[in-house]
Amino acid sequence: MFVQKFNTDMEEKKFSETSRKHYMKGGDGPDSYARNSEYQKQVLISAEDLIHQQIDEHLNIQIPRFDPQNTFRIADFGCSIGPNTFYAVENIISPVKNKYEKSNQNQTPDFQVFFNDLVGNDFNTLFRNLPSNRKYFVAAAPGSFYDHLFPKKSINFAHSSIALQWLSKIPKEVIRRGISKGRIHYLGGEKEVKEAYAAQHEEDFGRFLNARADELVDGGLMALHMVGFADGDAFSLSGIQIEYEILQSCLEDMVELGKITKEKVDSFNLPHYFPSESELKALIEANGSFWIGKIAKLALPARSKLGPKGLTLQIKATLGMLFEEHFGNEVAEEVFKLFLDKLVERPALLDHKYWEHTIYFVFLKRKGVN
Amino acid sequence: MFVQKFNTDMEEKKFSETSRKHYMKGGDGPDSYARNSEYQKQVLISAEDLIHQQIDEHLNIQIPRFDPQNTFRIADFGCSIGPNTFYAVENIISPVKNKYEKSNQNQTPDFQVFFNDLVGNDFNTLFRNLPSNRKYFVAAAPGSFYDHLFPKKSINFAHSSIALQWLSKIPKEVIRRGISKGRIHYLGGEKEVKEAYAAQHEEDFGRFLNARADELVDGGLMALHMVGFADGDAFSLSGIQIEYEILQSCLEDMVELGKITKEKVDSFNLPHYFPSESELKALIEANGSFWIGKIAKLALPARSKLGPKGLTLQIKATLGMLFEEHFGNEVAEEVFKLFLDKLVERPALLDHKYWEHTIYFVFLKRKGVN
Repeated sequence: MFVQKFNTDMEEKKFSETSRKHYMKGGDGPDSYARNSEYQKQVLISAEDLIHQQIDEHLNIQIPRFDPQNTFRIADFGCSIGPNTFYAVENIISPVKNKYEKSNQNQTPDFQVFFNDLVGNDFNTLFRNLPSNRKYFVAAAPGSFYDHLFPKKSINFAHSSIALQWLSKIPKEVIRRGISKGRIHYLGGEKEVKEAYAAQHEEDFGRFLNARADELVDGGLMALHMVGFADGDAFSLSGIQIEYEILQSCLEDMVELGKITKEKVDSFNLPHYFPSESELKALIEANGSFWIGKIAKLALPARSKLGPKGLTLQIKATLGMLFEEHFGNEVAEEVFKLFLDKLVERPALLDHKYWEHTIYFVFLKRKGVN
Repeated sequence: MFVQKFNTDMEEKKFSETSRKHYMKGGDGPDSYARNSEYQKQVLISAEDLIHQQIDEHLNIQIPRFDPQNTFRIADFGCSIGPNTFYAVENIISPVKNKYEKSNQNQTPDFQVFFNDLVGNDFNTLFRNLPSNRKYFVAAAPGSFYDHLFPKKSINFAHSSIALQWLSKIPKEVIRRGISKGRIHYLGGEKEVKEAYAAQHEEDFGRFLNARADELVDGGLMALHMVGFADGDAFSLSGIQIEYEILQSCLEDMVELGKITKEKVDSFNLPHYFPSESELKALIEANGSFWIGKIAKLALPARSKLGPKGLTLQIKATLGMLFEEHFGNEVAEEVFKLFLDKLVERPALLDHKYWEHTIYFVFLKRKGVN
């Protein structure tokens, strides 16, 4: 049974990993993710109290029957190249340790942390930047988090921050029927495009939950930070939609300048989906392996504080590889130059209200005898 | 206690990892380790039967009390960037599976493989080249194998091929007292230099055995392929000594050409040690945590079959980074050009007898209740 699942995973891997650049800009140069991920760090900071409180409430410290050697294993899914993932990990270890120390009955475990991202992620940079004062064993697990990545019941805590909006692929229907022509995303588009994206998300998030349900110990915990929409808000004006529409207009400019063809733009779609709270709840309940400890909106500073240049660098660090893959490096560079120009020319676009995302904090506990 | 050990490890790490390039040439270009490691593969092939036989004889398949989830964890220490490590891993999984299947009483476990090498190793290339038909979970564990890298009793099989000749550093005495001036290695040099290297090896190999003793489950297995000398042979003419003396003469040529200073060469030492069988046995017995299942010499094809160019590329892929680190890229390039010239000019140097290494196959079993 395992082998069968494994084969399916492997086939999927060939598609999702080798053929697509769904990862952040590597290295630690000025345009790298490592230097342009302050917003993602703010998400972690704003979730800090919630994660401490949830761990204190839900962590069972009587799990050693699953691991008599007393190791607490943490996996960060979609870790990118740091430094945020190191911060996230410390933010889990600290309340876990606290709970053990308060209990006075169990020895504090050793910690082993698995950093996960796609095979193409720049793990060399991640490793070079590991905090020298870390108090945990380090491992990396390359591969798509929509597949199984770890042995059964081997992980105590699963974490994923601002990563699950990445679908495993563009919905087949969108490509096959060309229903998204003229737009690079479902936001603001036809209903059937939105439905195709939602269906892909349902499949992908279901696979994520299934894989984690197998990998987590009974009573194991999971904290997710997911970009989403408030219920009923999916078609209204939002920061993400504005961002994508500016990007789209940059591509249209490039067509007018004769630098790329209209067909090239028609075949480009962003593989992102942003669920609502009720969608998330329904998918978690349909999966059935987890108790919902908490779903809450995080209070976040607006990204517009970054200014036009900082905001452009940040978006380029996270989306740039997709543009490079589809249009080539030169075109990608020009697109983000145009993007910056537009922000500079029309400062009204930088209004806070356009750059506020809804980020859900989701805390789950693996059902089981514990 | 763990924390204390950990701190020491961390201090050592700063020295051994960040400051030294003890790793193979990355990428997959014509001068990469990936393309110039056929000899190292021959070592694996020549150990194949031995490893199958030893696993069949010594593997306890009643270990699930340590892991009720039935995962068999393998770690390859000093894995470099592939493809040899993938071959080595298959060569362990296959006989383990066989033994489980023959027994008819235990379910074949899932396999999780940890690839270990220094932080500076090119793990990105390793991940890109992972076999697509693999049937195991993948993880990488960066760091020096002289430190603790895994939680206690979490590994079932430890493997290391042609890696333990790399000392963690040049012996302090050699640097402090300048006793190795004029030579880049202990081979053929003064007795006190050899003794300083032997003492460093004793310390390093002891640390390796201690760390693995903690990490292996009781009854866990370890297979090592180590470059060494036959007993009593340490000061006689050997392939390695010839290789190093040619390298040294190339550096002397560079001094004569005025391209580097004599002092620069004086301060360069190769951090390698090649123990004899009796030294190995004594160190394993002094450690006391392992039963010796087997120590045997492997029968190997001579490396001279590679021809001058292939041999030069192979040596450059494994030692080149050390030369680059100390002398800079340009000088390193020239040194290996001179090395190739010397082999071409004096074909007698390619005689088989000069290029035969003694490789020991060492098979150990962690003592314990099993």
